[in-house]
Amino acid sequence: MGFGVLLVEQGKARLVAAGAIRFTAGDDHTLKLRAIFRETDRLIQEHCPDELAIEAQFFGKNVQSMLKLGRAQGVAIAAALQRDMAVVEYAPKRIKQSITGNGNASKEQVAAMLKSILGVRELPSSTDATDALAVAVCHHFASSGVGLPSNTKGGKGWSAFLRNNPDRVV
Amino acid sequence: MGFGVLLVEQGKARLVAAGAIRFTAGDDHTLKLRAIFRETDRLIQEHCPDELAIEAQFFGKNVQSMLKLGRAQGVAIAAALQRDMAVVEYAPKRIKQSITGNGNASKEQVAAMLKSILGVRELPSSTDATDALAVAVCHHFASSGVGLPSNTKGGKGWSAFLRNNPDRVV
Repeated sequence: MGFGVLLVEQGKARLVAAGAIRFTAGDDHTLKLRAIFRETDRLIQEHCPDELAIEAQFFGKNVQSMLKLGRAQGVAIAAALQRDMAVVEYAPKRIKQSITGNGNASKEQVAAMLKSILGVRELPSSTDATDALAVAVCHHFASSGVGLPSNTKGGKGWSAFLRNNPDRVV
Repeated sequence: MGFGVLLVEQGKARLVAAGAIRFTAGDDHTLKLRAIFRETDRLIQEHCPDELAIEAQFFGKNVQSMLKLGRAQGVAIAAALQRDMAVVEYAPKRIKQSITGNGNASKEQVAAMLKSILGVRELPSSTDATDALAVAVCHHFASSGVGLPSNTKGGKGWSAFLRNNPDRVV
């Protein structure tokens, strides 16, 4: 399980923490869920984030692996819900699109952009951690209205449309 | 989401509560997860159960529906994990086998046996509630070593084998 924590100040995201938690392969499924719940809870207590963003995977090897993935996401989401955090999810293509401008970007392209956006020389060695950071940056962009392909001026809905297009008000 | 609460006294299970919680179809996925987490937490606070048993579904319409089911199960499991309850799961066939002796029993057969086992005239009208009660009864049987097709004398492993077969000790 990868995680990434960002601090947004004056519209700019700064990398606070990122990493990956490994679980022993032989562990019982329930023990793993317990570990995910406790670790997520611990990270939330440590960093007190306002929001949790997760990647919504819509494909998988088989239905059983998806059930397990769903459960793992469910306990992580519950750790956020019990502290009344907002939970949002983004599809993988949306994440890549948001960061690189291309929904089919390679992992290397995403990593290069992440370094540039966060102003860091190195990213965590774990792919899970980098993937998690990508979700966090995507959420930062979505929240601040940056990097949205269809609406780059920020926000959506009528109020945003009117704000962004004052000349269209008659 | 169906639920069933049993009280086991002197090896006999008694029906304490059962029901189903409906969520509005139009609700946002995260709102639904929040509702499942809160409702499960409320039920746990109300009845203080020692253990949570859930049905492990290993098939589904598609991977996306399985991810959603997994997430829903995950938040319910997390509600139990945060109170250090044991969580166990049973496959649908195992549940039917345990209650009726036949892993392919019909819903009507399961319902008839449930009435007899719990000593009640009526079951909840909701199928989800009856399904949940079936999981609870299966777990009761598994915990007390009743209704296991392959080992009807209770328990498993060497200690149970020796306890059940004192004449095999040489």
